[in-house]
Amino acid sequence: MATPAGRTERNHQWRLVSRPQGRATEANFEWAESPVPELAEGQILVRVIYLSLDPANRMWMEPVDSYMPMIQLGAVMRGITLGVVEASRNPGYAPGDIVQGLGGWQEYCVGDAAGWAKLPRIPGVPLAAFLATMGHIGFTAYFGLMDVAQPKPGETLVVTAAAGAVGSIAGQIGKIAGCRVVGIAGSDEKCNWITRELGFNAAVNYKKGNVGEALKRACPNGIDVDFENVGGDILGAVLEQINVGARVAICGLISRYNTQGPMLGPANFGNVLLKRARIQGFIVLDYAPRFPEAAAQITQWLKEGRLKYRTDVADGLRNAPTALNMLFDGTNTGKLLVKVSEEPV
Amino acid sequence: MATPAGRTERNHQWRLVSRPQGRATEANFEWAESPVPELAEGQILVRVIYLSLDPANRMWMEPVDSYMPMIQLGAVMRGITLGVVEASRNPGYAPGDIVQGLGGWQEYCVGDAAGWAKLPRIPGVPLAAFLATMGHIGFTAYFGLMDVAQPKPGETLVVTAAAGAVGSIAGQIGKIAGCRVVGIAGSDEKCNWITRELGFNAAVNYKKGNVGEALKRACPNGIDVDFENVGGDILGAVLEQINVGARVAICGLISRYNTQGPMLGPANFGNVLLKRARIQGFIVLDYAPRFPEAAAQITQWLKEGRLKYRTDVADGLRNAPTALNMLFDGTNTGKLLVKVSEEPV
Repeated sequence: MATPAGRTERNHQWRLVSRPQGRATEANFEWAESPVPELAEGQILVRVIYLSLDPANRMWMEPVDSYMPMIQLGAVMRGITLGVVEASRNPGYAPGDIVQGLGGWQEYCVGDAAGWAKLPRIPGVPLAAFLATMGHIGFTAYFGLMDVAQPKPGETLVVTAAAGAVGSIAGQIGKIAGCRVVGIAGSDEKCNWITRELGFNAAVNYKKGNVGEALKRACPNGIDVDFENVGGDILGAVLEQINVGARVAICGLISRYNTQGPMLGPANFGNVLLKRARIQGFIVLDYAPRFPEAAAQITQWLKEGRLKYRTDVADGLRNAPTALNMLFDGTNTGKLLVKVSEEPV
Repeated sequence: MATPAGRTERNHQWRLVSRPQGRATEANFEWAESPVPELAEGQILVRVIYLSLDPANRMWMEPVDSYMPMIQLGAVMRGITLGVVEASRNPGYAPGDIVQGLGGWQEYCVGDAAGWAKLPRIPGVPLAAFLATMGHIGFTAYFGLMDVAQPKPGETLVVTAAAGAVGSIAGQIGKIAGCRVVGIAGSDEKCNWITRELGFNAAVNYKKGNVGEALKRACPNGIDVDFENVGGDILGAVLEQINVGARVAICGLISRYNTQGPMLGPANFGNVLLKRARIQGFIVLDYAPRFPEAAAQITQWLKEGRLKYRTDVADGLRNAPTALNMLFDGTNTGKLLVKVSEEPV
């Protein structure tokens, strides 16, 4: 355990040392060990419990600034983390507080408390659930669907990467909003999960047969709303079936994050004109002033048992680089996490 | 001149007899001559003066229903026309009335009066100006810019096909709205016209050098709004330079109307996500209930001399099929019309 002074633990970090061509591999990172630094006035020491692995992590490695600055070579890999405060020289934080922030791919974080949000403990809701249903995952699903796509009761909503972290929540919120919800996922097991456990009305396994034909069968009244996580051919198949006035909320374009060069648009783009459709990208950080609204709503749904989730947990920070590719292989179901250390009892 | 009974004029029509592969040619049409039919109760006889040629004409020939039904083989080619009432068995219309409607590629139209809107005569505004600044052209520019794209003063607006009928009006409305307006057009002559006569701040000749580089130089503060008539590579170049919160109003995708198969989306589509951009297609017919608002506003701007226009007039209905391709060659400047018969004196 950490001790506030005379610290003896060693911190391990994954640092980005080269930019991936295609998928990231361990060779793009350096495994570094260093002492845990002493706390300065106002700082806190956070022991990371869970590291969240997200498709955007790959985008941040590219040599371009996007909605966040690129990760500098030599720096600790950026990542969203949930941890416990082990020591504090900040009056707002006490040892034992559970916090969430951009702690990065490391075991311990020492720094300014400003970037760390304290999380409530909800009886019956395990810590990992916060990363699966709240914060960047749940808030993305909530604002992307309710604010950007604006589904109406009775409309047909398609969710791509529907068994993924954000997609699985977005689809359930779509059901709460009264939509007929159709998910696209990459295995029969995932399709079964979203229809049998999460309550989606139908599912399409895009790895089996023609996705356009299957989507047509699953959406006999066309598509009114698309919560898009994938892009590329999947988005092209969706655009082929959209109705007049359709809304496409672009949450992610995971099909293209590992490719080089200018990202091509989807097929059937002409339907954007013919169907007077709206395609709109969004980034959850833009909604920061409204996070409390989403947190309150999602907390209520969790308490009511209306939101289900699954976590897929890789064990040990050491495995983060390889686990990241599960997102792009489609081998994870639900929220992909790395367990970096034990939850407090 | 027409006579209300015992009519002796012959009507000439272009009928669509085969669907074009690529560009339409005369071989896709049949030149037919037939008697002008007698008027039934409630009908009017319209002598066509101007036929409007528009990029959408080509789209209507495709074997798919879009926002309008496909044109049936053997039917008169569909087109927007301006004409004069020569005979009427409808109490709402009198000989001499100037009317606009979907008269089609023919010299005389006999039918129900419902589809024909009476036009006012504005002193100093020639008849052709209605087709160049009002109706489907001016209303498209007005609603597409003001309602879909919503430019703010000081923003950079890019207009593609900027020397075309809709683009040249949209750019001028953008100036009235307080934007810095940059047009993309296909010749130095067109670029000179939009900057020197229409007041655009800058112009890019997309046929000279790298359009992306030229656009970057012309838009040092990036692009906030795009009034898009072209699609394809031009839209891709625009997306490369968009700012956070950019709006792209899709008015047309002329670069793709002559191609077969599913229409591919633009390059740099990833910026829709990174820049939280909105791409929205629109069809002016959806704004029909608000046409009077646009007509009043545009009439005022015309009277104030704030909207300039050019017409490019082909002579004789016989030339309609070949003249249509001027839109796709880019050889017209301003509104492309066919003069079918003489204006009333």
